Amino acid sequence: MSVNRDTVDDGVVVHLPEADPKRQETVLRNVANLLRALGPDTVVELVTHGPGVELCTGETGLADTVADLQQRGVTVCACANTVAARQLAESDLLPGVTVVPSGIAHLVVRQRQGWSYLRP
Amino acid sequence: MSVNRDTVDDGVVVHLPEADPKRQETVLRNVANLLRALGPDTVVELVTHGPGVELCTGETGLADTVADLQQRGVTVCACANTVAARQLAESDLLPGVTVVPSGIAHLVVRQRQGWSYLRP
Amino acid sequence: MSVNRDTVDDGVVVHLPEADPKRQETVLRNVANLLRALGPDTVVELVTHGPGVELCTGETGLADTVADLQQRGVTVCACANTVAARQLAESDLLPGVTVVPSGIAHLVVRQRQGWSYLRP
Repeated sequence: MSVNRDTVDDGVVVHLPEADPKRQETVLRNVANLLRALGPDTVVELVTHGPGVELCTGETGLADTVADLQQRGVTVCACANTVAARQLAESDLLPGVTVVPSGIAHLVVRQRQGWSYLRP
Repeated sequence: MSVNRDTVDDGVVVHLPEADPKRQETVLRNVANLLRALGPDTVVELVTHGPGVELCTGETGLADTVADLQQRGVTVCACANTVAARQLAESDLLPGVTVVPSGIAHLVVRQRQGWSYLRP
Repeated sequence: MSVNRDTVDDGVVVHLPEADPKRQETVLRNVANLLRALGPDTVVELVTHGPGVELCTGETGLADTVADLQQRGVTVCACANTVAARQLAESDLLPGVTVVPSGIAHLVVRQRQGWSYLRP
């Protein structure tokens, strides 16, 4: 995706603050369903912070599903505050994960751009 | 309600993805409070998907409260993906339930129209 | 803060309906992170209702953190419906807590003004 997301006004941010693998799996399935329903060009960012960041380290065992969604254009974001608090290195994150300065603030920034918000 | 919801720009979508009867009861009470506070003409859609669809089958024992809210103009929606995955027939759903193609996508479609989003 | 919030169009409402102290602590930390990331002038209202109101009575042991956020301009709101249902007096609430007629409706009123919504 070479889309400049800062000019998109109809994207979707999906909020994932939890580490439970079952819940994370559900959220990833929700994102896949969203793309199927709204079309493959839908701009979606999955924003993890707090324990939710374990999606981005692969700790919850969902690396393959993450990679699949990324290949379909979904941006998977990890919160820099959480990354720092957990003393994670860039190399601890799955390939292609985008680090945003603050996960919670990013969810607001996107809504201010006009994006929809989902908390599955 | 003969309102064409596709032209409404100040409705409210309420997101219910969970099956726990206590939580579902709380969500239904929240919707009733919302109507009381914002006025009976407020357009509200309660969108269930995943385990949340058990509200729409009556499995969680809340059929009477659902009927009461419907009578007051609330649309109760079930996700077609979930309905298919659970092999439910139209006749398994409570009277008046609206099936939407994708629950998660519907929540985005409404926000894009200008509706507010609540995840109780 | 002498800001008239009814004219603000880029505030943030944060939704807290739960009483679990660990979750409440997380939500308060999220709000602090939000202010740090978006700047101290960001208008934030933390809206509690149902069991979430226990934040506002101090029952969950977070009075100091609440006071700290209030000092930084965050409005902490309790739902009047919940306050009445729990037979709370004004004096049962922490100093500076704002009582709104309906917590759930307030979240919609703010979104209609253009505010972002977070459900941590």
